Amino acid sequence: MQNIDLRSDTVTKPTPEMLQAMFAAPVGDDVYGEDPTVNALEEKTAALFGMEAGLFCPSGTMTNQIAIKVHTAPLTEIICEVDSHIHQYEGGGIAFNSAASTALVHGERGKMTPTQVEAHIRPLNNIHFPETRLVSLENTCNKGGGSFYTLSEIAAVSDVCKRHSLAMHLDGARVFNALVASGDRAASYGLYFDSISVCLSKGLGTPVGSVLLGTRPFIQQARRVRKVLGGGMRQAGYLAAAGIYALENNIERLAEDHEKAKQLEQVLKEANYVNTVLPVDTNIVIFKLNDRFTDAQFVDALAEQNILASSFGPQMIRLVTHLNITDQMQEKLLDTLKRL
Amino acid sequence: MQNIDLRSDTVTKPTPEMLQAMFAAPVGDDVYGEDPTVNALEEKTAALFGMEAGLFCPSGTMTNQIAIKVHTAPLTEIICEVDSHIHQYEGGGIAFNSAASTALVHGERGKMTPTQVEAHIRPLNNIHFPETRLVSLENTCNKGGGSFYTLSEIAAVSDVCKRHSLAMHLDGARVFNALVASGDRAASYGLYFDSISVCLSKGLGTPVGSVLLGTRPFIQQARRVRKVLGGGMRQAGYLAAAGIYALENNIERLAEDHEKAKQLEQVLKEANYVNTVLPVDTNIVIFKLNDRFTDAQFVDALAEQNILASSFGPQMIRLVTHLNITDQMQEKLLDTLKRL
Amino acid sequence: MQNIDLRSDTVTKPTPEMLQAMFAAPVGDDVYGEDPTVNALEEKTAALFGMEAGLFCPSGTMTNQIAIKVHTAPLTEIICEVDSHIHQYEGGGIAFNSAASTALVHGERGKMTPTQVEAHIRPLNNIHFPETRLVSLENTCNKGGGSFYTLSEIAAVSDVCKRHSLAMHLDGARVFNALVASGDRAASYGLYFDSISVCLSKGLGTPVGSVLLGTRPFIQQARRVRKVLGGGMRQAGYLAAAGIYALENNIERLAEDHEKAKQLEQVLKEANYVNTVLPVDTNIVIFKLNDRFTDAQFVDALAEQNILASSFGPQMIRLVTHLNITDQMQEKLLDTLKRL
Amino acid sequence: MQNIDLRSDTVTKPTPEMLQAMFAAPVGDDVYGEDPTVNALEEKTAALFGMEAGLFCPSGTMTNQIAIKVHTAPLTEIICEVDSHIHQYEGGGIAFNSAASTALVHGERGKMTPTQVEAHIRPLNNIHFPETRLVSLENTCNKGGGSFYTLSEIAAVSDVCKRHSLAMHLDGARVFNALVASGDRAASYGLYFDSISVCLSKGLGTPVGSVLLGTRPFIQQARRVRKVLGGGMRQAGYLAAAGIYALENNIERLAEDHEKAKQLEQVLKEANYVNTVLPVDTNIVIFKLNDRFTDAQFVDALAEQNILASSFGPQMIRLVTHLNITDQMQEKLLDTLKRL
Repeated sequence: MQNIDLRSDTVTKPTPEMLQAMFAAPVGDDVYGEDPTVNALEEKTAALFGMEAGLFCPSGTMTNQIAIKVHTAPLTEIICEVDSHIHQYEGGGIAFNSAASTALVHGERGKMTPTQVEAHIRPLNNIHFPETRLVSLENTCNKGGGSFYTLSEIAAVSDVCKRHSLAMHLDGARVFNALVASGDRAASYGLYFDSISVCLSKGLGTPVGSVLLGTRPFIQQARRVRKVLGGGMRQAGYLAAAGIYALENNIERLAEDHEKAKQLEQVLKEANYVNTVLPVDTNIVIFKLNDRFTDAQFVDALAEQNILASSFGPQMIRLVTHLNITDQMQEKLLDTLKRL
Repeated sequence: MQNIDLRSDTVTKPTPEMLQAMFAAPVGDDVYGEDPTVNALEEKTAALFGMEAGLFCPSGTMTNQIAIKVHTAPLTEIICEVDSHIHQYEGGGIAFNSAASTALVHGERGKMTPTQVEAHIRPLNNIHFPETRLVSLENTCNKGGGSFYTLSEIAAVSDVCKRHSLAMHLDGARVFNALVASGDRAASYGLYFDSISVCLSKGLGTPVGSVLLGTRPFIQQARRVRKVLGGGMRQAGYLAAAGIYALENNIERLAEDHEKAKQLEQVLKEANYVNTVLPVDTNIVIFKLNDRFTDAQFVDALAEQNILASSFGPQMIRLVTHLNITDQMQEKLLDTLKRL
Repeated sequence: MQNIDLRSDTVTKPTPEMLQAMFAAPVGDDVYGEDPTVNALEEKTAALFGMEAGLFCPSGTMTNQIAIKVHTAPLTEIICEVDSHIHQYEGGGIAFNSAASTALVHGERGKMTPTQVEAHIRPLNNIHFPETRLVSLENTCNKGGGSFYTLSEIAAVSDVCKRHSLAMHLDGARVFNALVASGDRAASYGLYFDSISVCLSKGLGTPVGSVLLGTRPFIQQARRVRKVLGGGMRQAGYLAAAGIYALENNIERLAEDHEKAKQLEQVLKEANYVNTVLPVDTNIVIFKLNDRFTDAQFVDALAEQNILASSFGPQMIRLVTHLNITDQMQEKLLDTLKRL
Repeated sequence: MQNIDLRSDTVTKPTPEMLQAMFAAPVGDDVYGEDPTVNALEEKTAALFGMEAGLFCPSGTMTNQIAIKVHTAPLTEIICEVDSHIHQYEGGGIAFNSAASTALVHGERGKMTPTQVEAHIRPLNNIHFPETRLVSLENTCNKGGGSFYTLSEIAAVSDVCKRHSLAMHLDGARVFNALVASGDRAASYGLYFDSISVCLSKGLGTPVGSVLLGTRPFIQQARRVRKVLGGGMRQAGYLAAAGIYALENNIERLAEDHEKAKQLEQVLKEANYVNTVLPVDTNIVIFKLNDRFTDAQFVDALAEQNILASSFGPQMIRLVTHLNITDQMQEKLLDTLKRL
């Protein structure tokens, strides 16, 4: 019997149509810049977000880490929310790859206000401090339970960055969820961000890859960093073809994942084993168990029903909806959560 | 007319007796390990704190940075209070010199509880996280207004570190102030800390230098790091002699500095330009101005009276007492603060 | 008309059989360790070389850089030949990713003797020097013109490493060419190397990927480094399946590429535009032009005949044979080189 | 009985006059930029070499490492001679502090020709290579046996650097020996070098310190790096005063050290235990023993006569003359070397 896997939207497998697109893709050696499918994906993604150029990479961790490296230097500092992926889940990569410091903002559900950002900018011309160089947002915010910034909130943080000559990066691991939920246009992001990391292997359902977006000189420098990190692939067009297919077919359907997450929220709010549920804005449901279960016990109990969930800290559980969760699975899922 | 300089206890100049000790010192080439006065200082400081060995360095930033480097590695993390000197005032050195990540605890007046420390330790065997390797305390805590840990508080944090196999470092920039204020014995520190940075150029009044303490193998590795940072000096015995003099003559007199700081606190508490004064525990007085002055205006107003103070953030002022503040200066100072 | 592309054996595209194997592969989320095809490839490659465990990565640069990182630390040094790929073509990655120093041996055609290696080991317990930690061989050596180490040569270098407690790494970008040419058994390599990087996207003809081999604890640490570099991929099984296919079908046929390279050598030796040809041992042909052509002119002249070659420095040309060069192409190629 | 210490010119101790100058120096807190003696030394040294500004540091390793850090960035490369101090004796600091790669030129006696430098510059706009950024010369060259570049040789290398937009650094650990031997003017160096490290604690005889010279913005950035390395000292004027004294009194007398070294060369050339003596150009004498002694035996044999020498590799010995070698010591030394 097939598992209902809600651990992450990274576990999705290509649909037959996507697989066919991959299989038929023309390819070349991307280290020579000659893979036509990779080139097409990079251009398509850049155009979608109103950016100049793109770079296909094996993971969203790599696109984030490359962006941070290109924007910063040793002796500089990056401002991000304490719960952001780049600080919490990238293995300490900011210090490892960039030797840059990190100023951590304690925001709300992963989101920082412009005032908070400004309060963390270091004074200039003082040798005791690293120089603030970059502000990084995550949209949607994973650890914030799928919370999202609207375009006007983004514009307000951008205003602080521009006044202080700071670069602004977007960790767009789930940017399409944010766009679908907010109704904002992707192309408007290009007005505010200096670089954007767009993941294709989460809600969009491709097997592998992310695209880093920026100006042409930025992407040129990013290409150097990708090389030295070992992210240069050869005939990567097979993977890129899945990305093109996903951009053309899998964005709008994210609304269905959000709807399914909302349904989970409703059931969980009334469940007698739940303490609190974080507000559900997109496709991530995070809730706190009361003392009926520990998080480990709860994960095990679901696993017995062939449902896979993630422990997300003491008493915390995360469920993520995605395109491989069919309506039938959802029905069973809701039913199980009610009866547990 | 001579300035009354309260910007820091780093501004102190040697007394004639200390200067005489310096220039009578026998010296040698310390890179060859042949400076007898440096060797004597290292041994004396180590013995005082119940540690095996010592290493004389040009600054407390260097002793801290070397300790962090030896304890950590890239892909690891250090836990410290958000206001600690190693995070706030060492130019981003943790990332720069060690490529290590930093988990920032929001404690009280620069002090962390054992529970807070434990909550910031990363789960083991998870490739998403750096490995927690080191906990660093600062005693007294500068940005906490000279607050101090007692030995029993240190022991409680040490207990967490031992249970999780973490190293524990002390930034002892003003450790003698902590010892004098708490009445704790220096030798007891050796039971808890894996490394201690002891500054000689602050309250102790020497011109230059700090001593890093640890086990013999730790100090051997520290010597390699000192070399590569460029901290190896030749006939450094002239500087070390001041340290020996200070250890023998200038520790107990720190109580006078604490008393002077208390007097400042009393006056400031009643001053009509002050909003709040941080509790004064040692030789640092930090207070917040009300809207009668900005911090810049207040610093200027004192400067007109030949009194030097530090702006310590918006509306914040820091005053530090030390051995170059005579009783006569203190009198003028109290008088000026009352009349301002 | 199709190009005859001799710029590199990285330009190969999958055969229909390989492509079929790729898209029939069962996949899963490799960040969770759940991609069965990736797991199978890692185990198969490890077994082949007599090593404990493997790690699939997006490129040979990444497998090399991860190995160097895990073996070394800041303040240590790696010994390699001056022409080796890790020093020449990985963007300065040794310093960038590992902050390790490099001792460069001037060998012959990319190969170092045991005596040369030993002469570059730093004295112990001297703070002026980094500690020698790793020796890295490249087999075959690209810049050496496809030269190879025999197993007994490898054993002799290993002997030096063991006496000095140094780790030994193999950059096996073209290790199968070396094995086919020498007749040595892959499994014997496990006796000598602490880590091996095996490229699948060169002579073996897969689109993307390399496998890093080592002990289980080494690979566990390598997994951490891969994560922080951004090399963790999700459903990477599609790529890994090509690797399994290649290991089963494309090794022995490398002899044909060597034969084709030998034929090129013969023609070039007698060509009136050639100064010297490096001895051809495997599938790489490097030669020096006399003054009839510059390297740029020569590359252009071939391009007019739809033949792609690489300039390899002033007056130097490199041709690489591979599985996409058909007998018919080879015929045209030999003919063109004769008549140029 | 006092040792005749020829291990290095770093072992010198201040003369009574220099010590008196130190003792009488006005001092202040140099981290605030308020030490008048440090400021005077920095200005005096900069003026002497025709540079804009200076920065006093605890060692020549630090001044070199800071310069390399400010000139380079990760992903860039520095060109230097394989025997240069920055590569051989600074603990692997180039990779450690700057994460920069090193291209090693095999010159003659530590000196590189302009042609050699140019041949090591990396092609532009190729992601496989780090970008060449800096060329570093050492004058005199320690491991080259005190060999020196003349101004016209420096100008020729500078010409290559200017054509390729590379910065040029001088490791002037023994620059005054080079100036005295060549008769070149210090002020002319400012025309060619972007940064100069000037050591005061070698032939000039001060206890501690080096000065880094460059443009004002360069020194401003260098000050940040010095801070993060822990090289900021407080009342450093006591050390700086020795430097001022040395610049005024101890430069011209280096000719005496050179003369003494020449005398040693004459004796050693005729000694029956010597194989070859490197040409003696300044104050360093390096020679190779024949099989009558190993280097360790020779050092021991001299030590029995209270003469200290350095082993400088297998069968190699180094002797360095300096201001603490009196005429009487020299007489005994020559006599001993003749009779050994």
